[in-house]
Amino acid sequence: MQFSPLIEELIQALRCLPGVGPKSAQRMALHLLERDRQGGQRLSSVLARAMEQVGHCKNCRTLTEEDLCRICSSGRRNQNVLCVVETPADMLALEQSGVYDGRYFVLLGHLSPLEGIGPEDLGFDELLQRLKDEPVDEVILATNPTLEGETTAQYLVELLAGLPLKVTHLAHGIPLGGELEFIDGGTLSRAFAGRLGFATRKDSDG
Amino acid sequence: MQFSPLIEELIQALRCLPGVGPKSAQRMALHLLERDRQGGQRLSSVLARAMEQVGHCKNCRTLTEEDLCRICSSGRRNQNVLCVVETPADMLALEQSGVYDGRYFVLLGHLSPLEGIGPEDLGFDELLQRLKDEPVDEVILATNPTLEGETTAQYLVELLAGLPLKVTHLAHGIPLGGELEFIDGGTLSRAFAGRLGFATRKDSDG
Repeated sequence: MQFSPLIEELIQALRCLPGVGPKSAQRMALHLLERDRQGGQRLSSVLARAMEQVGHCKNCRTLTEEDLCRICSSGRRNQNVLCVVETPADMLALEQSGVYDGRYFVLLGHLSPLEGIGPEDLGFDELLQRLKDEPVDEVILATNPTLEGETTAQYLVELLAGLPLKVTHLAHGIPLGGELEFIDGGTLSRAFAGRLGFATRKDSDG
Repeated sequence: MQFSPLIEELIQALRCLPGVGPKSAQRMALHLLERDRQGGQRLSSVLARAMEQVGHCKNCRTLTEEDLCRICSSGRRNQNVLCVVETPADMLALEQSGVYDGRYFVLLGHLSPLEGIGPEDLGFDELLQRLKDEPVDEVILATNPTLEGETTAQYLVELLAGLPLKVTHLAHGIPLGGELEFIDGGTLSRAFAGRLGFATRKDSDG
């Protein structure tokens, strides 16, 4: 026995959400049906609008329902720095750290021959166009420290080699609050290779 | 900085799902927008239909978009036994165990003065009516072994006391595959109090 066809269809449809297996999908469907029809209706209508209306920022490719995202349309951002990230979530994480006041370019993925994702899918042409049109001095490659992310960064380094600008990447090393014991060997060897001197009184004075 | 207004609205709307906090809601929204618009659209339309069309079985009160659920409309179920459960999910769990071939009555909750849930919300009148109309010999109270579930069962025991039928509850004890070490004291004392003799050769022979 199962639930009635429409309820089974709802449980099935909920499985399109990441991290939702059969048991959670059942729990979600029954929760909405038993206790929160209003929430379910609201979710349905917002979902329909979002799936239809959300597109990409014309300038940086992040997800937005507007023509230009807030960062690209803001006059207050530093136009001389451009940070390249893989996803809108990465962009949000950097924004939330509050450390960066420049602009972004969102690849919406990384190079992955296996999945058939090549340079044309990641908007490299648009990126080069922006570097021609805008007064950018430095490109920060903030792709993920994974095989695909690093490959993508390396490709970009070569692509941008001839241009009159500095290309940098985020520092690798031990994350704050991490315990050495639990940090993987790759990170440790990067942290060793990139070790820094302590700032002594003399250094900071002079 | 946040995402654009419509994306923020979607993240907020996803939080109506049980077990979904701000981080998961963000992950779900971005997943649908970046990778599965079709799934999102399908979810939106199924949700809208389910929230509008799913009601309750006229006979047993379980969730269904039909007038009568499949069990109530089946001619093959034993009409002499009626099992009372709290939720449609409990009913499904019993069905999946394959141990029961009678019919059900779904309370859709349990007595809870604090939440303002009284006998009238749990369909006790409909239950009594069914017991008058149908040839039921035994009512199995399969409410949850929680304070509220047991209180509800106790209330029903008193309500059904005058009727010419047997009222039973599921056995309490040690779950199969459980290790004594990890079983709570309440369950252990119930299992002690209800201990059973081993079936010896002689017993089973006759």
